[in-house]
Amino acid sequence: MVLDNLKTFVALMERYGLDAYIVTDSDPHSSEYTAGHWKARSWLSGFTGSNGTLVVMQGEAALWTDGRYYIQAERQLAGSGITLMRGGEPGVPDCYEWVAGKLGAGAGQGGGSAPKKVGVNGRTFSCAAYDELKKALRQGSGDAGGVEIIVDFDIAGEVWTEGRPSMPDGRIFCHDLRYTGKAAQDKVSEVRAELARRGASHTIICGLEDVAWLFNIRGSDIENLPVAYAYAFIAPDYAELFTDTAKIDDEVKKTLAGQGVRVADAVDIAARLSGLEAGDSISCDARKLSKWLRRRIPDAVRVIYADEPTVLLKAIKNDAEIRGHRDCQLQDGAAMVRFMMWVEREIGAGADIGERDAALALSRFRAQGKDSRGDSFNAIVGYGPNGAMMHYTPGKDGGARIKNAGLMVVDSGGQYPSGTTDVTRTIVCGVLTDEERFDFTLTLKSHIALASARILYGATGGHIDSIARKVMWDHGMDYKCGTGHGIGCYLSVHEGPQSISMRSATGARLEENMIVSIEPGVYREGKHGVRTENLARLTEDCVNEFGRFMRFEILSFCPIGLAGVDASMLDAGEREWLNSYHRDVYEKISPLLDTGEREWLANATREI
Amino acid sequence: MVLDNLKTFVALMERYGLDAYIVTDSDPHSSEYTAGHWKARSWLSGFTGSNGTLVVMQGEAALWTDGRYYIQAERQLAGSGITLMRGGEPGVPDCYEWVAGKLGAGAGQGGGSAPKKVGVNGRTFSCAAYDELKKALRQGSGDAGGVEIIVDFDIAGEVWTEGRPSMPDGRIFCHDLRYTGKAAQDKVSEVRAELARRGASHTIICGLEDVAWLFNIRGSDIENLPVAYAYAFIAPDYAELFTDTAKIDDEVKKTLAGQGVRVADAVDIAARLSGLEAGDSISCDARKLSKWLRRRIPDAVRVIYADEPTVLLKAIKNDAEIRGHRDCQLQDGAAMVRFMMWVEREIGAGADIGERDAALALSRFRAQGKDSRGDSFNAIVGYGPNGAMMHYTPGKDGGARIKNAGLMVVDSGGQYPSGTTDVTRTIVCGVLTDEERFDFTLTLKSHIALASARILYGATGGHIDSIARKVMWDHGMDYKCGTGHGIGCYLSVHEGPQSISMRSATGARLEENMIVSIEPGVYREGKHGVRTENLARLTEDCVNEFGRFMRFEILSFCPIGLAGVDASMLDAGEREWLNSYHRDVYEKISPLLDTGEREWLANATREI
Repeated sequence: MVLDNLKTFVALMERYGLDAYIVTDSDPHSSEYTAGHWKARSWLSGFTGSNGTLVVMQGEAALWTDGRYYIQAERQLAGSGITLMRGGEPGVPDCYEWVAGKLGAGAGQGGGSAPKKVGVNGRTFSCAAYDELKKALRQGSGDAGGVEIIVDFDIAGEVWTEGRPSMPDGRIFCHDLRYTGKAAQDKVSEVRAELARRGASHTIICGLEDVAWLFNIRGSDIENLPVAYAYAFIAPDYAELFTDTAKIDDEVKKTLAGQGVRVADAVDIAARLSGLEAGDSISCDARKLSKWLRRRIPDAVRVIYADEPTVLLKAIKNDAEIRGHRDCQLQDGAAMVRFMMWVEREIGAGADIGERDAALALSRFRAQGKDSRGDSFNAIVGYGPNGAMMHYTPGKDGGARIKNAGLMVVDSGGQYPSGTTDVTRTIVCGVLTDEERFDFTLTLKSHIALASARILYGATGGHIDSIARKVMWDHGMDYKCGTGHGIGCYLSVHEGPQSISMRSATGARLEENMIVSIEPGVYREGKHGVRTENLARLTEDCVNEFGRFMRFEILSFCPIGLAGVDASMLDAGEREWLNSYHRDVYEKISPLLDTGEREWLANATREI
Repeated sequence: MVLDNLKTFVALMERYGLDAYIVTDSDPHSSEYTAGHWKARSWLSGFTGSNGTLVVMQGEAALWTDGRYYIQAERQLAGSGITLMRGGEPGVPDCYEWVAGKLGAGAGQGGGSAPKKVGVNGRTFSCAAYDELKKALRQGSGDAGGVEIIVDFDIAGEVWTEGRPSMPDGRIFCHDLRYTGKAAQDKVSEVRAELARRGASHTIICGLEDVAWLFNIRGSDIENLPVAYAYAFIAPDYAELFTDTAKIDDEVKKTLAGQGVRVADAVDIAARLSGLEAGDSISCDARKLSKWLRRRIPDAVRVIYADEPTVLLKAIKNDAEIRGHRDCQLQDGAAMVRFMMWVEREIGAGADIGERDAALALSRFRAQGKDSRGDSFNAIVGYGPNGAMMHYTPGKDGGARIKNAGLMVVDSGGQYPSGTTDVTRTIVCGVLTDEERFDFTLTLKSHIALASARILYGATGGHIDSIARKVMWDHGMDYKCGTGHGIGCYLSVHEGPQSISMRSATGARLEENMIVSIEPGVYREGKHGVRTENLARLTEDCVNEFGRFMRFEILSFCPIGLAGVDASMLDAGEREWLNSYHRDVYEKISPLLDTGEREWLANATREI
């Protein structure tokens, strides 16, 4: 299947005179999570991870992904003829540099040879990606003109004729002020103030979560993510929502109009950009705006590249959002407790359950929450060796069977009108090896190191990442993923600008009332995985002669499996942290439980 | 004096039609340490710290510096009418944004008003600084044309007619291959290979240390720093040294010629740049190249902005350089031991000694080293409250008197043909308060945390900074400076690209055989300071399924004052680190000492 599609693909490349083509799962908004309609790379390569870039050439294809997906990609690419490139590993070339090297060999030399051409889909390829590719091509070939980038063809779209999901058409609805805490018109005013600071008169907002946040709307175009395909356009004297107008009913339109927001059809965003005039200046995020839309902006308009002006505003939660987050975490914790009890009972009864059964059960428990709006992502349920795949989800075959031994990583979350949750617990299914217990406890120590840290104001996520990671490094260990990420309020489970990661060296400063996940782990390929993840809010700690400090308020409440903890590895402070956290878990969650559940929780959160 | 000069300065600004002028201590190479001839800002403002930017306007002047210098700047600016701006503190505007705000107010509004003008000395103002200023002016005023930057006047140079040091004219000499470990022609080949990777045909190297390293020459134009004012220009088929040719004798010229290096007069570098042709491409460091030289490059030439291609090559030390560093550290350690004994004896005898006496004594002990080439910087000797000023040096009045109590920070280093040293010890002068002992021990714990850490390959200095800083943060404390920096071999005590700092989030990856300082501290304004600094080399630790790890080999050998250590604050690992380090100190340094000194060292490095 993959081989046939690749063959057709290569034939089309040849017809269009392209030597290489770069295929991604990007949509026109460069979303992290996209509707099925846009998942061209997944379809063409068979690799379904959320991060991957496929390069197709005559007689050769290669796919880049990151450490979270090495194991999954290896399996899914087996037999496809596509080479797996472990991005970020020493010695592995960068994707674009690789393309440059392949095309640059011989280009511009000897004269007379036609320039090589690399194709991308300009409607889904961001300006930043385009510039990176261009830079790599220049540097690789030593000749700026040696390789051309062609943005006009969507070859995957041409090949993908059967079974391609149609464009999503979910209804748009308004999100209540008691959850958002701020009216759309006030948010638009704040955006205009930020634009003034940047010296910009206009902005186009491409990020779907940012559009939803700004106008206090939600949609249902992407699985588990309540956003709609839409753009926001902010001018000095009006604010406009561009989307498929069939998604908006009169009442929503009226509410938006009451907030000063006009509604226009999605296709007209191009005209709005080309209608900008000399003297106008527009703030754009080059990582979001597609190359195709960028070309609509007249040359006389000054373009200011910066984060979308909503990103930082959205990341710093207001009182209503924090209250909402605290509230939905309780419903979520109760669902997790019921799920953990269910796993224990099933295993204890010798039932034959698989990873997928567990994922479905968890979904069910979450759906019972009074305000549940479903899952915030497809749960990662990895038993035994599958736990070593950071982003593994059990397939339709039901996944591995869960036995009375070892560890199971369960990473899941829910959507609630009041917030979005994301929590990981590693469930102790039975007897553990010494290595499993060591890894479980080390992960807990790493988690505590960061969760209990004081953070100086001015630090970025990249800067504090090593506080968690050092605990691993001390033992010659590491995890090939970030330590934490931001999260939305009834929006995406991954939200910037903050990011706690080795790769986020240039990331944003941490600010009070940002929410982040803290999720170190240990992943032993072919053996097991451990991850312990809580959400936490940055809050004021103290101000003194040395500076202004913040600390974390933990928001997730769910017991950490004491059967996995080697108490002799914990120092007094770590033990106290764990006991204190467990006291909080019992206090917050037990009121939502029945007597039997309460007893179970009391034992699960007992003092050690 | 300062007031008079400022008055003349402002009058000249008026004559040239400038509304603001930015004065720095920069030289045409944007050196960190500059010859006295270039220290216009120090001269005009009276503030002599190594980092400072002065902005002069009609009726107003302000000076920006960083946390190392707040206390010193406060004192030196007192009575000058110049406002101190504590750069990096919350709420303190960035220097250029401040200028933009001041000039932008009203600019371009109402029409008819002439555009405002800000002046800089284009010969010493880097391209990067120019671009930053331009960006701030654009964003501040909301109008790109609202403020002009004028680069044609050196107003400080016009006012500074009396007592200005002349241009330095120190002799250039060759540095022996047994120290450099690599011939100049081999280094030039490596630079060309790096240029090829960047797609550049040429490069201009402005960094004085980089020119010296590349051509294996040294000079004596800057105090404590053996470099000469010079540029290197690398073309595909030749390498050229541009400098005041009076500094070079025939023998040096012959040696350089033997390495394929031509010599030309410094003024001709401009002609070399303007002689570049279409099709040429030149790699420049925008933070080093002056705006004036940048304008010499024809528009048809492609300019690639990047670190100078020598920077990373120079930072990764070769075997000869590492051997050299190990060797000179021993001589340096012996000098430090003799100095510490001297302080102890003087204080014990009730002698009336001041900070400056101590600095001179230390210089003397260092000069006795068999290969000594003097100090690598003016020693920081800060007793009591003066220790809280990170970069304090005792004035000509002799500085504070050293008493039989409290702490004294001594940060110093030496130049040797085999290397450059930089070491800080905080000397316990007598009885300590509980707070002093706590701070001393906490600094040691912070130092050990980083010095004993395993570092994953791929980490940057910005990323590992928090490993040391967390120890402080846990107690609501911090130090307002970096944790560490690179260092040269018979070159500068501060060398990039690596930097362990909260501000170096975008810094270079750490590599094996880079050398860095590790120097956390505690600084209590008005009370005391503590700093403990060693140099350390990054070396291979292990490679396993989790990645490739490095560790630190400590290069500095000098006892850490046990009288300052509260052993009850150390855990078993920290205690073992200290004892093991002290065993090494005794083993390495004692062979260079006489019997009495050896006995003193044995006691100073005793096991605790």
